Amino acid sequence: MQTMFHYNWLVREEWYQWCENIPLEELLRKRTGGVGGILHTLFHVVDVEWSWIRVLQGKDDFQESFEEYQSLEKVRQLDTNFQFEVREFVRCWNAEKENNILYDPQPDGSVVTDTWGEVMRHMIAHEIHHIGQLSVWAREIGKKPVSANLIGKGLSHTLPKI
Amino acid sequence: MQTMFHYNWLVREEWYQWCENIPLEELLRKRTGGVGGILHTLFHVVDVEWSWIRVLQGKDDFQESFEEYQSLEKVRQLDTNFQFEVREFVRCWNAEKENNILYDPQPDGSVVTDTWGEVMRHMIAHEIHHIGQLSVWAREIGKKPVSANLIGKGLSHTLPKI
Repeated sequence: MQTMFHYNWLVREEWYQWCENIPLEELLRKRTGGVGGILHTLFHVVDVEWSWIRVLQGKDDFQESFEEYQSLEKVRQLDTNFQFEVREFVRCWNAEKENNILYDPQPDGSVVTDTWGEVMRHMIAHEIHHIGQLSVWAREIGKKPVSANLIGKGLSHTLPKI
Repeated sequence: MQTMFHYNWLVREEWYQWCENIPLEELLRKRTGGVGGILHTLFHVVDVEWSWIRVLQGKDDFQESFEEYQSLEKVRQLDTNFQFEVREFVRCWNAEKENNILYDPQPDGSVVTDTWGEVMRHMIAHEIHHIGQLSVWAREIGKKPVSANLIGKGLSHTLPKI
């Protein structure tokens, strides 16, 4: 589990560095698919990751508005602000938490249940999916995207030991 | 681990069904990013998944050519042909295999090593990343993409039990 979070964080950092060489206008440009833009996507993955961590802990969440984060620096700062709590939660993850139940009340009065294990994997897949969208938009502006390879990043130290 | 493979297989099946309502011309059209097309992407994820499973088992691999699989039916049939071996390998996955070493000789004579755990997670991330690309191309042709949500798919039965 932790390995894939570490993968996402490494890839996200590489995308931040990639963005440093792209004009802000291109980062903010409206695009087809996903949440509709490069910087908006990075903002979205940061926001959603943190929001789920908060929900699992039964803590208050708030919906950040991208309107307030219209620069690479602001998105990175938001990420930095959230990172401690997110990393601490992921670091403390263990198998006993897999089958904890999250109760998610719906507008119609019903209650949807998810296991924490499902939610954590949902978070992982959510980010990888959106990063895949970035890779298309990168090519559209003639730039080579960040590699999505998980092997070769030295992540084996984050694998479960037997 | 198994949960994320099951997620990928469910989402892939939903993309096959999505493709049934798209003209073949659109499925084959050259697009920007990734491997350059919708059906080609599905072919690619099927091919790569199987290839890694073969490599981990020390078995022969072969590079399929997409030129031979220019219809949805042919890609699905290839997937069906590979599925038994892939699913059996994933079903039998356990923690003891995490730190097995894959030795990967390079053209320059050096040998790169990856743990099996890294390779399995690489396969998972590889597919999710490419499916993210499909979601952009779907919007480009005015179609709603398949949901990338992992929660809500009843995958908790595939989670590790304590």
